[in-house]
Amino acid sequence: MPGQPPSPRTEIRRKPQRAHYDRATVEAIVDAALICQIAFSHEGSVHCLPTACWRSGDHLYIHGAANSRMAAALLAGECCVCIAHLDGLVLARSAFHHSMNFRSVAIYGRFEEVTDPALKAAEFAAFVEHVSPGRAARVRPPSAAETAGTRLLRMPLREAAAKIRTGGVIDAEDDLALPVWAGVVPLSLRAGCPEPDAGCASMDPPRLPGRLTEPLARLP
Amino acid sequence: MPGQPPSPRTEIRRKPQRAHYDRATVEAIVDAALICQIAFSHEGSVHCLPTACWRSGDHLYIHGAANSRMAAALLAGECCVCIAHLDGLVLARSAFHHSMNFRSVAIYGRFEEVTDPALKAAEFAAFVEHVSPGRAARVRPPSAAETAGTRLLRMPLREAAAKIRTGGVIDAEDDLALPVWAGVVPLSLRAGCPEPDAGCASMDPPRLPGRLTEPLARLP
Repeated sequence: MPGQPPSPRTEIRRKPQRAHYDRATVEAIVDAALICQIAFSHEGSVHCLPTACWRSGDHLYIHGAANSRMAAALLAGECCVCIAHLDGLVLARSAFHHSMNFRSVAIYGRFEEVTDPALKAAEFAAFVEHVSPGRAARVRPPSAAETAGTRLLRMPLREAAAKIRTGGVIDAEDDLALPVWAGVVPLSLRAGCPEPDAGCASMDPPRLPGRLTEPLARLP
Repeated sequence: MPGQPPSPRTEIRRKPQRAHYDRATVEAIVDAALICQIAFSHEGSVHCLPTACWRSGDHLYIHGAANSRMAAALLAGECCVCIAHLDGLVLARSAFHHSMNFRSVAIYGRFEEVTDPALKAAEFAAFVEHVSPGRAARVRPPSAAETAGTRLLRMPLREAAAKIRTGGVIDAEDDLALPVWAGVVPLSLRAGCPEPDAGCASMDPPRLPGRLTEPLARLP
């Protein structure tokens, strides 16, 4: 996948060594997300709202009710979509050198609406698959009325930048002998025990994306 | 703590039964966060950036380098801070009724800078305590130069709204007999095994906020 040069507003100037503009890196961070935050301007204020998201091809998708104010506002102007995965606490020997490991993306552009019922149905299935692989074929698909009553919006990944911090503590030489634990505490979003609704406790629980179910490494 | 009536921009009109405007609910969601997303307008575009945050009293705090463009932009105008905790996947029998459990806040207002060195030192200690209780007294505190080189910004929690979804699946009556697992998969951010930096493997690992270390309930 081709890299994209940064635009004036995606160019990362603080710690540019952490910036990534290639599509594969951006897509990987988007694909690991269940929700994004969308910043947009509406009636003179800047707003920031979380919403579920998924990717298909070159676009990030969201959905909303037919009368959603956010959807109407997004279609009326540009916005910035942000996804941030917090991957670890970086605990240094000095307060100043504490940090966090993370993967984030900022995507600039304008949402467009997808109105074709067949395309909408395909994307809603992709959304269910994103949340629980294999599930779209097992649940009742949206009715025509449900599809019509849900807006599907998408934004190209064209103008996007990723920022990533990985790795360990970077302490000042003078602090290395201080008698305090230093290192990284990994953090990640994990699934707990599925809680079945009445009447289906005996069925196979859902498949989940692997990143949510990998065991956490524990202290020995 | 007194409730606050919603402002025109914090009033939640979609599913208003999920809205909470009381300070205790807002504070609990802020206190559970390690990062927030900040939406602001700068040079004609809306931006959304993640950054570490903590609360002291009536304010949400963030910090940045002395030459941070974001800090300068935030001090120049209003913004919206968003925090979203994803608490679960709500897997219904129909695609349409899938949902997510979450706790989110949106806080509107303007950041102000705290410049007093003693106040800054106290807040940086509070930040370290927020990440790892008991740690501020063990690490080397910021030097005068480190404190001077870091901007401390705070925003009042005055104009804020929380939105919370909890609970189980809400399926249509006609779908209840479908032979597919339905229920809630809890999600939460969890800490893995601390990875010590060279030279301190034998020391006590850091204390962490309890919500990051509670065992996840697993399938029997």
